[in-house]
Amino acid sequence: MKGKEITPKRLDILRRQMEREKLDGFLVSSPQNRYYFSGFTGDYGFLLVTETRNILFLDSRFLEQAKEECRGWEVIQFQRFHQDFSSLLSEIRVRFLGFESQKLSFFDFKELERNSPGVHFVPFPHLLEEIRGIKEPGEILKIREAIRIAEESLGEVLKGGLIGNREEEVSLELEWKMRLKGAQKAGFDLVVASGKRSALPHGVASPKAIGKKEFLLFDWGALKDYYHSDITRTFFTGSPSKKQREVYLTVKEAIEETILQITPGRSILEVFQFALSKIKNSPFKDFAFGHGLGHGVGLEVHEWPFIGPRSEGTFQPGMVFTIEPGIYIPGWGGVRIEEMVMVAKNRVEVLTSFPREISVI
Amino acid sequence: MKGKEITPKRLDILRRQMEREKLDGFLVSSPQNRYYFSGFTGDYGFLLVTETRNILFLDSRFLEQAKEECRGWEVIQFQRFHQDFSSLLSEIRVRFLGFESQKLSFFDFKELERNSPGVHFVPFPHLLEEIRGIKEPGEILKIREAIRIAEESLGEVLKGGLIGNREEEVSLELEWKMRLKGAQKAGFDLVVASGKRSALPHGVASPKAIGKKEFLLFDWGALKDYYHSDITRTFFTGSPSKKQREVYLTVKEAIEETILQITPGRSILEVFQFALSKIKNSPFKDFAFGHGLGHGVGLEVHEWPFIGPRSEGTFQPGMVFTIEPGIYIPGWGGVRIEEMVMVAKNRVEVLTSFPREISVI
Repeated sequence: MKGKEITPKRLDILRRQMEREKLDGFLVSSPQNRYYFSGFTGDYGFLLVTETRNILFLDSRFLEQAKEECRGWEVIQFQRFHQDFSSLLSEIRVRFLGFESQKLSFFDFKELERNSPGVHFVPFPHLLEEIRGIKEPGEILKIREAIRIAEESLGEVLKGGLIGNREEEVSLELEWKMRLKGAQKAGFDLVVASGKRSALPHGVASPKAIGKKEFLLFDWGALKDYYHSDITRTFFTGSPSKKQREVYLTVKEAIEETILQITPGRSILEVFQFALSKIKNSPFKDFAFGHGLGHGVGLEVHEWPFIGPRSEGTFQPGMVFTIEPGIYIPGWGGVRIEEMVMVAKNRVEVLTSFPREISVI
Repeated sequence: MKGKEITPKRLDILRRQMEREKLDGFLVSSPQNRYYFSGFTGDYGFLLVTETRNILFLDSRFLEQAKEECRGWEVIQFQRFHQDFSSLLSEIRVRFLGFESQKLSFFDFKELERNSPGVHFVPFPHLLEEIRGIKEPGEILKIREAIRIAEESLGEVLKGGLIGNREEEVSLELEWKMRLKGAQKAGFDLVVASGKRSALPHGVASPKAIGKKEFLLFDWGALKDYYHSDITRTFFTGSPSKKQREVYLTVKEAIEETILQITPGRSILEVFQFALSKIKNSPFKDFAFGHGLGHGVGLEVHEWPFIGPRSEGTFQPGMVFTIEPGIYIPGWGGVRIEEMVMVAKNRVEVLTSFPREISVI
């Protein structure tokens, strides 16, 4: 009964947006948005939402599954997607169709357009992502659960002796622990990056053995009930050098002060600039993170809102996102600390709780 | 030294195609094609191939990684993809740019087009996939290894008592075994479907406990060195009923006779029709597979060529693909058998070797 977890509120919000944009239909094609609105977990399929109808448009492989999962949805089977979808549009007289322009391929767009004379295709690059960016209480519970699983699992992994083990062995053990605790899978390719590799912002676990007196960076998370967690901690595999300690404390101070800057209504861009300036005003200014400061987390591990130099808008109640400043010194090592933060009506809560003090393992 | 495994032959083939199509540049945007031509394993980035240059176009996160992985490639960093890529096109005077039209989003296309006056964007829905569809010997070795890991792992899982265990526990154990044998991960969400659930063509492992005298269908595979395996077997958890046995033997006969039909140069469509007619001429004609008969396997678990009612062309030496007929009786159960097949110059080899006799576990 997965479908029961999909609230009707989501479709109401979409329909209000459609009304405002003068659309009489919306084509939903990306897996996460399809799941968000319908509860359908299959690999392939499309939603057509109109003023009065919820249509799940599928090939034969997924009919039985959809009937189980998607209460309140008409299931219509297609043979050839482009032709049959165009016929459906014509049959139910859709004239202005919104679509996900960052997700639909150029090819699908062209084929649909060619087969649908008289239909206006109206691109929306992130309308559905913005709706999804404001989490419902039920979603936040799932994210909390994904965080709990990830944090407990890393805690257990750290109790073993890690020095001498290969990064990829440690990654496998961490994923295994998360899955035994009920995760569907790891939320993404886990980063276990030791020594110089900690300077790679995306250094997924490699065959390198973890050495002594190194940085050891974990960027890890779980997928639980289709929701993600995404956390980073950097440890020391021996008493840190003066420089290692300084780099670490610079990042720690940056994230702590940055989180205090976040309030409902605060400009996202300003918070990014604040965090970057903290590093730029440190002795490590040449090695400040070149990636964004953070991103929304939910059905996707990286989703709207993105917190970076081109952010617009303000923090809104219901947003759940990461804050993850870092310092990366090529050929030497790096430090990143990543927390997950929720904005509520009158407060800001750090959802992650793994200690961020200097920790020698 | 991952880059060493990327043969220059691939780029030669692409350049010959570009010459034939009168293109002076090709934009590669999908992860698998990016890896295939450059060896780059990062999450995000673009290739621009011209007559004389191999350019990897990346944001700051991946610069170090690319320099390690991609010998023979110029690495150019961008800040804003659409604007900076358009400037690059203008700088090196690309006028006819091929692109992957089934992969590039409508949004990216529009932004590139808007920023690139004078450049003609020429869509190719599956040109790169066709190049990748003809495997090199080194790729076939990796696929064989992905098959070996998957088959050995299932063999070990079946030795344990499975009745009473939940499908998802069995799936986790199978993945764990594959990873201990060196798989990067499971090749896809593994299907472990027992009883009635075996009638779901995509019934990923659920909390259902495996019962007695049921069908138990595994659709499983490994990812090893970025190459996939994809195999299906259906077992019995107790002595099969007459009908269960009949359904099974119908599928078994269909796949065995179908594989004998495959030769280099044989029409792909005809082989599909042959397999379907085998089931349509059985007592289970109303329950024949509605999915394709098979698909290429390589860097993607489902890739070109697709073997179905709209297939064109013929089987070519170097193709590696699945053959997977099935019978699905809703509410009762189903059987699918899936083999991986390679076409060579003068012969056809079934790469998978797991027994397909009736097997009670």
